[in-house]
Amino acid sequence: MAAHREISTDRYSYVFSPYAEPIASVRPGETVTIVTEDAFESRITSPDDLPSQVLNFPFLNPQTGPIYVEGAESGDTLVVEILGIELTRDWVASAHIPFFGGLTGTADTALLSEPLPERVFIYPLRDGHVELPRGIRVPIHPFLGTMATAPQIEAIASLVPGDFGGNMDVPDTCVGNTVRLPVRVPGALFYTGDAHAAQGDGELCGVACEVTAKVTLRFGLEKGKTIAWPRLESPTELMAVGSTRPLEDAARIAWVELIGWLVADYGFDRWEAYQLLTHAGRMRVGNMVDPKYSMVARIEKRFLPA
Amino acid sequence: MAAHREISTDRYSYVFSPYAEPIASVRPGETVTIVTEDAFESRITSPDDLPSQVLNFPFLNPQTGPIYVEGAESGDTLVVEILGIELTRDWVASAHIPFFGGLTGTADTALLSEPLPERVFIYPLRDGHVELPRGIRVPIHPFLGTMATAPQIEAIASLVPGDFGGNMDVPDTCVGNTVRLPVRVPGALFYTGDAHAAQGDGELCGVACEVTAKVTLRFGLEKGKTIAWPRLESPTELMAVGSTRPLEDAARIAWVELIGWLVADYGFDRWEAYQLLTHAGRMRVGNMVDPKYSMVARIEKRFLPA
Amino acid sequence: MAAHREISTDRYSYVFSPYAEPIASVRPGETVTIVTEDAFESRITSPDDLPSQVLNFPFLNPQTGPIYVEGAESGDTLVVEILGIELTRDWVASAHIPFFGGLTGTADTALLSEPLPERVFIYPLRDGHVELPRGIRVPIHPFLGTMATAPQIEAIASLVPGDFGGNMDVPDTCVGNTVRLPVRVPGALFYTGDAHAAQGDGELCGVACEVTAKVTLRFGLEKGKTIAWPRLESPTELMAVGSTRPLEDAARIAWVELIGWLVADYGFDRWEAYQLLTHAGRMRVGNMVDPKYSMVARIEKRFLPA
Amino acid sequence: MAAHREISTDRYSYVFSPYAEPIASVRPGETVTIVTEDAFESRITSPDDLPSQVLNFPFLNPQTGPIYVEGAESGDTLVVEILGIELTRDWVASAHIPFFGGLTGTADTALLSEPLPERVFIYPLRDGHVELPRGIRVPIHPFLGTMATAPQIEAIASLVPGDFGGNMDVPDTCVGNTVRLPVRVPGALFYTGDAHAAQGDGELCGVACEVTAKVTLRFGLEKGKTIAWPRLESPTELMAVGSTRPLEDAARIAWVELIGWLVADYGFDRWEAYQLLTHAGRMRVGNMVDPKYSMVARIEKRFLPA
Repeated sequence: MAAHREISTDRYSYVFSPYAEPIASVRPGETVTIVTEDAFESRITSPDDLPSQVLNFPFLNPQTGPIYVEGAESGDTLVVEILGIELTRDWVASAHIPFFGGLTGTADTALLSEPLPERVFIYPLRDGHVELPRGIRVPIHPFLGTMATAPQIEAIASLVPGDFGGNMDVPDTCVGNTVRLPVRVPGALFYTGDAHAAQGDGELCGVACEVTAKVTLRFGLEKGKTIAWPRLESPTELMAVGSTRPLEDAARIAWVELIGWLVADYGFDRWEAYQLLTHAGRMRVGNMVDPKYSMVARIEKRFLPA
Repeated sequence: MAAHREISTDRYSYVFSPYAEPIASVRPGETVTIVTEDAFESRITSPDDLPSQVLNFPFLNPQTGPIYVEGAESGDTLVVEILGIELTRDWVASAHIPFFGGLTGTADTALLSEPLPERVFIYPLRDGHVELPRGIRVPIHPFLGTMATAPQIEAIASLVPGDFGGNMDVPDTCVGNTVRLPVRVPGALFYTGDAHAAQGDGELCGVACEVTAKVTLRFGLEKGKTIAWPRLESPTELMAVGSTRPLEDAARIAWVELIGWLVADYGFDRWEAYQLLTHAGRMRVGNMVDPKYSMVARIEKRFLPA
Repeated sequence: MAAHREISTDRYSYVFSPYAEPIASVRPGETVTIVTEDAFESRITSPDDLPSQVLNFPFLNPQTGPIYVEGAESGDTLVVEILGIELTRDWVASAHIPFFGGLTGTADTALLSEPLPERVFIYPLRDGHVELPRGIRVPIHPFLGTMATAPQIEAIASLVPGDFGGNMDVPDTCVGNTVRLPVRVPGALFYTGDAHAAQGDGELCGVACEVTAKVTLRFGLEKGKTIAWPRLESPTELMAVGSTRPLEDAARIAWVELIGWLVADYGFDRWEAYQLLTHAGRMRVGNMVDPKYSMVARIEKRFLPA
Repeated sequence: MAAHREISTDRYSYVFSPYAEPIASVRPGETVTIVTEDAFESRITSPDDLPSQVLNFPFLNPQTGPIYVEGAESGDTLVVEILGIELTRDWVASAHIPFFGGLTGTADTALLSEPLPERVFIYPLRDGHVELPRGIRVPIHPFLGTMATAPQIEAIASLVPGDFGGNMDVPDTCVGNTVRLPVRVPGALFYTGDAHAAQGDGELCGVACEVTAKVTLRFGLEKGKTIAWPRLESPTELMAVGSTRPLEDAARIAWVELIGWLVADYGFDRWEAYQLLTHAGRMRVGNMVDPKYSMVARIEKRFLPA
């Protein structure tokens, strides 16, 4: 891949905000490479770096941004093609953080139970795999956990997903795919970060294979085209992402957005689309650990009429 | 009641934000009267003012604020005594807003169903009652639907409740009660608005008896005392408010915060407190219609040891 | 109160079942006194009787029944007036049972957390109060946690509430109130048990003040009148009970059933009823600990048109 | 495939019940072919057969069973290998049923909204595909929506999934896979039915490609081996199925059961297993439309230590 202009920062953002000053500006059609920190801002480098000691809530999941997209206006759709993700170190960190994760009481599911034991895991990356103990090798599938535009009037913590994208933790924001995000402020104000070398569905313990990265993106605009929730597209699939709680409501948002897409762009009526998704739709649990959960509704393009 | 300094604004806020400039400043111990708009910024004055036509989402639930409290620092608790609520007009507005409310599909519970019929209701206030049709008279119980401090780094839409207070829609924020809110930024940055002349548990259709008001508050600080979620106190009860989805998680937050209060200030161990609330605790559904639901866990003071 | 025929059993039922043989039969209009065991079948009598050792899941919450109501047919409504509840011992039992309760991982909210410490609490009843440690005295408010008719084809464990009533754990099934339950099989097949001397909203730890009792009930029938969910009536209120998960869905069921009642019997159209409940409705959290949660939607009769 | 003894019935069951008489008996190791009706008992054969007119709730989802497995005792695990599924007609039925489905108000998510339009869809099966309108062809992937053992004391409607299996609507109960179910009564009392020719994740509208079938199963027993929830095994994956509401709790059950499996049989400690599933676990939404939702947690065998 040819070298592209590199965008980096030494002042990361911990919110997706319409109130922040852009750190860079891009033109529609332009390709840039963005340097991203890991979710812990590289404060966890060994099993002794306990999250409760080295992290400083809410200054987590540092974002590179905002990046101003020239010409973007409220009501447009920002199109982000993911051309490359280069992992910039040869190890990843995961952790069991007290009162965080899918199988423990949390800030939202508040209980009297004790937290799970705090633990940090450092895994090497080797030969295309994350190497867990006992010879378990998980293929590297790099993606950006977080991609967002700025909300219209809110500044939302970078740990949270929403209709603006954000911390969706969806493995489909990977190389070869295109992400569409709603534009709600002038310049769209794009953020990204939180690269994962691998992640299971749901990001069960709350922390994937966290890693630093450089991501190469090409930006585009669909002027005057308005979407309500993030949409993803791979060579073979259309996808919509819904984020809220409980998990069935995240799913409902994603299905309704995908049905809207099929109706608007593929000639379906909504009942035909409801039928098609009933029989051939797929759904991925993005995360079930963040302050809002993310679900991905999807349909293969081979099922769309010609 | 003696006259107090009046705080009003002609530029309402639609977020609870650490990024906004204060509109006024108060000293601990000071009593002020704050002028509040109704949730529709008085755009709905007749049954013909349909929300879908006269409202401009997300510019809803206008807040008077932020008000800077001198000396307030992160980690303190802001104490707000509600001394008076004067309703400043003789009618209220309610409405059935498309895709909003407790018994319809919504933005979060996204469905393919049609919206409920859009309707506006204007009710007179007379002789201490809201007068509904057919001679139904609901006693006026004025309270502020919304009271908040600014979150640490987020700016949250004024329709949303959270650990900072916000749009809790809890009838216990009424005259005679004291509201405690966590301070997370210098000056606390207090907001209030959204007076209701009356509201049932849950605010079922999503819109209570909305009204303009003047609220008289005395501000205080508990220095170095940190709370995680809003706490309310009446002459007879201790209360904690939890806000999230689903509703049981809002309840859990409220119970755990109330148990923490009993343990910290009333000499309980947590299992005794768990027992007491099991046998004598009360719970109110604040709202089950906003982007996060609010539940109020409560215990009468007569059940506390001397 | 005059003596009434007493119905008791030495073979309790652990399901609400259309397949069981009646233990007794009553005529509409008849008053009987029913002897009920406590939820632990009196196996817990001291702090040393740990639930994990003395209980035998799923043989819990023993029910007296089924009682055949002569003339009851599917589509009728069974009317049960609660005339008296006599507690038949001078102490109650509560407990923290591993993986059961509102603030712990459970069978349904499955987590990796350790259980809360197992504990049994025995409290004396004295002078109209439950006496907790440290001089805390909770007024006795006796009610039956469980009242049910048989489902049409299912046999449901006696720990579970549903549209047939069941283990609702709602303090409004108390003396002076009337319970209406749907009849789905010939004879209705009524069950009751699980008396509580007191209970807070939500029955937080999962175990109220469990006690043995004799309950005096008068049975009636509303022939050809069909209800979908249990309805309660006090001298001053109408109430409907919804039971499911999550808690907001239990609430929605209760509100919709109550609206149906207002429309069918009190001349409301559904939008008027929706408005009335928005402004004057009340809601109680029955339980948030059983396999299904129960919510009680309620409206005071003084708000109904004459 | 060689011919096997065929088990059929002319009296279908609408509950999974310990109280029913077996319709047949099998020996461990025996292979039989079971004839199953479709979920509508073949009452819907044309677009004019509206569910509200031709169906008779709760007599839905007819089950072939119970089948007594010789030697099965409480505490054992029933092993069911799915050797073949023959669809016995060349068309399938789907439908939009009022107040049923994933994107509408339902019996549990009770709303005031109108139902979606009632519709029936009849699709031909041709050349290995379900043929939808406009040339959309969905590959046939036959599976049994429902497989159950009898609960210990409950009789549960055949529309409901649970820890006994039941109406899981999980496409992994297909040819080549093995289903393990807990045995809770003598003879296990196995039920099956509800064949689907195809189904998307979540069974979105509530009705998949419903079809009659003959399913060839080989039964086995794991004596004295106790599981809490259904487990599935394919040549390449281990899976556990959790069923409850809300959807995240169904997911949690499935993850915890899968972790238990990895710990018991594959030498993991629970924190290693939690890590592995975080990085490599997969999850399928079985159904989000039945009275309880079903989620499938899964891990590929290639990630298990040798």
